[in-house]
Amino acid sequence: MKNLVIQTDFGTGSSSVSAMHGVCAMVDYDLKVDDGNNDVAQFNVLDASESLMYQLPYWPEGTVFVSVVDPGVGTKRKSCVAKLNNGSYIVTPDNGTLTYMKEQGLIEEVREIDESVNRLKGSEDVHIFHGRDVYAYCGARLASGIIDYEGVGPEYPVDEVVEAPYIHPEHKDGEVSGMIVEATVHFGLVGTNIPFPWLKESGMEYGDDVRVIVENDNKEILNKVMKLVPTFGYVEVGEPLVFSSETRMVMIAKNRGNATVDYNLGFGPDWKMIVKKA
Amino acid sequence: MKNLVIQTDFGTGSSSVSAMHGVCAMVDYDLKVDDGNNDVAQFNVLDASESLMYQLPYWPEGTVFVSVVDPGVGTKRKSCVAKLNNGSYIVTPDNGTLTYMKEQGLIEEVREIDESVNRLKGSEDVHIFHGRDVYAYCGARLASGIIDYEGVGPEYPVDEVVEAPYIHPEHKDGEVSGMIVEATVHFGLVGTNIPFPWLKESGMEYGDDVRVIVENDNKEILNKVMKLVPTFGYVEVGEPLVFSSETRMVMIAKNRGNATVDYNLGFGPDWKMIVKKA
Amino acid sequence: MKNLVIQTDFGTGSSSVSAMHGVCAMVDYDLKVDDGNNDVAQFNVLDASESLMYQLPYWPEGTVFVSVVDPGVGTKRKSCVAKLNNGSYIVTPDNGTLTYMKEQGLIEEVREIDESVNRLKGSEDVHIFHGRDVYAYCGARLASGIIDYEGVGPEYPVDEVVEAPYIHPEHKDGEVSGMIVEATVHFGLVGTNIPFPWLKESGMEYGDDVRVIVENDNKEILNKVMKLVPTFGYVEVGEPLVFSSETRMVMIAKNRGNATVDYNLGFGPDWKMIVKKA
Repeated sequence: MKNLVIQTDFGTGSSSVSAMHGVCAMVDYDLKVDDGNNDVAQFNVLDASESLMYQLPYWPEGTVFVSVVDPGVGTKRKSCVAKLNNGSYIVTPDNGTLTYMKEQGLIEEVREIDESVNRLKGSEDVHIFHGRDVYAYCGARLASGIIDYEGVGPEYPVDEVVEAPYIHPEHKDGEVSGMIVEATVHFGLVGTNIPFPWLKESGMEYGDDVRVIVENDNKEILNKVMKLVPTFGYVEVGEPLVFSSETRMVMIAKNRGNATVDYNLGFGPDWKMIVKKA
Repeated sequence: MKNLVIQTDFGTGSSSVSAMHGVCAMVDYDLKVDDGNNDVAQFNVLDASESLMYQLPYWPEGTVFVSVVDPGVGTKRKSCVAKLNNGSYIVTPDNGTLTYMKEQGLIEEVREIDESVNRLKGSEDVHIFHGRDVYAYCGARLASGIIDYEGVGPEYPVDEVVEAPYIHPEHKDGEVSGMIVEATVHFGLVGTNIPFPWLKESGMEYGDDVRVIVENDNKEILNKVMKLVPTFGYVEVGEPLVFSSETRMVMIAKNRGNATVDYNLGFGPDWKMIVKKA
Repeated sequence: MKNLVIQTDFGTGSSSVSAMHGVCAMVDYDLKVDDGNNDVAQFNVLDASESLMYQLPYWPEGTVFVSVVDPGVGTKRKSCVAKLNNGSYIVTPDNGTLTYMKEQGLIEEVREIDESVNRLKGSEDVHIFHGRDVYAYCGARLASGIIDYEGVGPEYPVDEVVEAPYIHPEHKDGEVSGMIVEATVHFGLVGTNIPFPWLKESGMEYGDDVRVIVENDNKEILNKVMKLVPTFGYVEVGEPLVFSSETRMVMIAKNRGNATVDYNLGFGPDWKMIVKKA
């Protein structure tokens, strides 16, 4: 018996998420089902991918993640289960949600879901909620051991897994850059896909002032010198800082303030951040 | 041991919902308690009824639903447990929450909760939170098998179950109509209580253009021709569509857009939708 | 095995809360982990304290509460586990979150978390998410019985537990006063730390008209006569009322209205409420 973790772009507190939990309980009463993150940005497969990368290392090996960000539901796109090299699984439409796992070589094998066996009986006429009828149902069967991984359906080449375009991180002497992958309104944290250790490799150390530049569609939105520090309390309340996120990526914020709102920042493939020596 | 599913109009992330979970854990540590939907529209018993109908078929038979939408808390209205013909139970104030189950003949029996045995000891002086003190407590006792259904309290006639008024769905040649029961801001989906198969019976088929009319308090709010299709991807991004909801009711939306917001629609007994041949 | 309940100021539906659940599952698959309230007001240790007081009596004795409202994360402030006199535990930064428990004499013993044993291995270089790396991890070890209370780390005097300043409740003949501790937007309920039975002791009874005064920073914001009644339905829709909260404290609201919004009220140490004979 494995943990099953659900993530969707349905919003928290949705009856739809409840129906997915219920389908899991119908498959196996003893299954442990958790909610991962039901506030993935709507229709945003890169945000789904990012959210999975965030959670993956902090759930037991073998956990089955069911990810439902599925703007193409009911049209041609594969439904699949990826097996990762840590033993965990991701059940998802093959629509870009697996971008970062593929890129980082985490996918060991991928199989297309055979709906003739792994779809809730009687749901064949429903075209808009594969999250409930296919992904939760198939994921629950896998997590509970009713099927093994081969039972998901036929294998296909990992090379064929769909990738969504994004800004790859880069570093050189005195400068790092990459994509803004997160800009929360809640705490105002602005995260990137730039590995934090690159700052040191590029010559920037705790205590330094560094220059942070943000570009949206190649237009400069922010250009500001900030302190590079270990955590919030190293700068005054309201002051901005550059620091390591809890996943060890470059992040900016304001101490008890809101960098997302104050600097009017967004995230995704149109949002680039550069950090360089001041 | 049965699943217990909580729904309320308290909002997600509320301490009040946590207290209900805690009371269940006090009754029986091994009980499996899930959140169904804590964003039921405030004080809206028809929305509570709709949300239960939505979840019912996707939880195991025998599941105990605890529904707390209770604007009359502490005043005269029965507290009850309805036994449904699929073996599941609904614990709720008898205030209209059971409207659709009664209407569709799903209620096999109903009993009034005997608070002298099925109320949290020491809570008798609290008049505003029967969700915690009566409904969660009684539901947990039923789900864990401490009491059987007879142990809830005295039976009363199903005929006496309170119904809230709503717009009944109708169909004739070339036209169907009914109530808008859902108009989410999150995805902008607009759902009705009109069975989707009626469209075909009334002469409308996939691929047809159909005319959608919405009236609020008998005033026309929307009058627009839309495509009748299986799912979102069959129309261009931003275009409206008519399709079958995941519960097989007539629904409208915009592909990756927001019909609720763009057309300024609401839901409930003041909102009627008509779909006819274009 | 004990229940573990998580509360944070991260907002509902956050991946960060999921990572905390995952860490608990890694410590012990069989642990029962619930969400208490992830909408604690940001950085607000008194709100965290209030939320814990609200939930404490409604979870089984021995429950482990993990509370993460931690604006000082990564700087000098103790991480601790308080043992309460009902056998439950609170795992938290020692930053004011324990204010009310200390004040009311509920803390039997307090221990500083020894991070050399009770911190997730490999997380030592992460400075911003002790909720995951220290509090969830340590709490899960305690709840699952891997460590006993002594295993948390060294004891220190309860006297040294950090308290946050607040307005203490007072009562005299004909008048009670205290702090507004809650002013929800959702239902518009406005709660205080004034014990409800004090109204009777001060000469106010159900059915009386009483005068409610609210001061923000010593400036009068509201001065209004309201009915003192058992619950909402005793006044007309839209009318204000004074009543006992579900934790038996003085509360005001409007029947099916919103006192928080209509009277423009807030909560915390700047917000005082006085209730006196009209």
